[in-house]
Amino acid sequence: MRLKDEDLVVLCRAPLFEGLPQSGVEKLVSRGSVEIAPRGRVLFLHGDPADRFYAVLDGWVKLWRETAAGDETVVGLFTRGETFAEAAMFDARIFPVNAEVAESARLLAIPAEPFIKELEADFDLVLRILGSMSRHMRGLVAQLEQVHARSAPQRVAGFLLRLQPEIAGSVAIRLPFDKSLVAARLGMRPETFSRALMKLRGFGVESEGNAIVIPDPAELRRFCEG
Amino acid sequence: MRLKDEDLVVLCRAPLFEGLPQSGVEKLVSRGSVEIAPRGRVLFLHGDPADRFYAVLDGWVKLWRETAAGDETVVGLFTRGETFAEAAMFDARIFPVNAEVAESARLLAIPAEPFIKELEADFDLVLRILGSMSRHMRGLVAQLEQVHARSAPQRVAGFLLRLQPEIAGSVAIRLPFDKSLVAARLGMRPETFSRALMKLRGFGVESEGNAIVIPDPAELRRFCEG
Repeated sequence: MRLKDEDLVVLCRAPLFEGLPQSGVEKLVSRGSVEIAPRGRVLFLHGDPADRFYAVLDGWVKLWRETAAGDETVVGLFTRGETFAEAAMFDARIFPVNAEVAESARLLAIPAEPFIKELEADFDLVLRILGSMSRHMRGLVAQLEQVHARSAPQRVAGFLLRLQPEIAGSVAIRLPFDKSLVAARLGMRPETFSRALMKLRGFGVESEGNAIVIPDPAELRRFCEG
Repeated sequence: MRLKDEDLVVLCRAPLFEGLPQSGVEKLVSRGSVEIAPRGRVLFLHGDPADRFYAVLDGWVKLWRETAAGDETVVGLFTRGETFAEAAMFDARIFPVNAEVAESARLLAIPAEPFIKELEADFDLVLRILGSMSRHMRGLVAQLEQVHARSAPQRVAGFLLRLQPEIAGSVAIRLPFDKSLVAARLGMRPETFSRALMKLRGFGVESEGNAIVIPDPAELRRFCEG
């Protein structure tokens, strides 16, 4: 199957493919097929074998699961230029949720087996994917830490909590002596960082020099999540 | 080399390794060496061959580059449980920035060649890494879209702009008829979403039914980035 040029350009921008040359993307998806699917079409159900994944060329697809009460919760919504279900395809073998077309869609369904065989046969493509995914993740983390409209104390609290993921019991953290480095990572001025740390005293956070103690990480997490 | 148990636990939480069984992580880093490095130690310079990457076991490392004016700009700051320079190791062959110990550190230096050979020999590990990185990225995107302290119009504007990455000229987008799906993706109520769209009229954004036109994406981007 050959994709239209404009679809290929869109596909190459998906995070999974963005580090690859266009020829690499074409090779990986060469066994895919384009499907026109009306609204309401079920693409897969929770528990089905994850033997394919999808790229949306047009339209919208929703992922959903049933709550304990039997209601539908939407857990994902995808549109032009986005891929979905590749995580399950890579390592889970079954789909963890249901997928349904939310608005008539043109989809590229990419079967797992030939895709993975192509990767296995061309390890250079794998390294490029790993490189670009690493870089993409780092960029997302930086954006998340620097979202300016979150309050500075919330951003500092989130940063401290990410350093120590266990939330049971008191936690001690040692910052660099030069705290302006941390301020820069969080995209704020050093004075703002110091003031934010002071404000976190209201949640029991003690700082002396570069030593920080968080007596109740769970409480700080509640504050951080607003 | 055998890592201390507590270091191994920390290492297994790094995004690069979190989808792997502990035995897989041990195998991948078995050729690594632990280095104690004082503050100020230069780990690598921009342009050096990217023949290794690092995990921080303790302390702090900064990545920096020189600005056109000759000043130092910190572009990354890493601490316990974080890896750095793996993107360059995977696909770039040379380090794009400088790395220096910011606060005396204990580091695991992982040489590229045996690491990549292990991956090449155990494709199942590769698939697990790809799966967990995909899942991790999706989680970060969801967090970023749902950061509640950003204003609703900013979140909607950011979402619309991500759908159409080209910023030259007017852009038309078709949302699902059921706009509550988009509201859910952005973590807001449908009414909030509608109001946010209305507010974006101030930036020329026109919506009629589920059709959206953005006459000046660059202006909307400036608003979105606050």
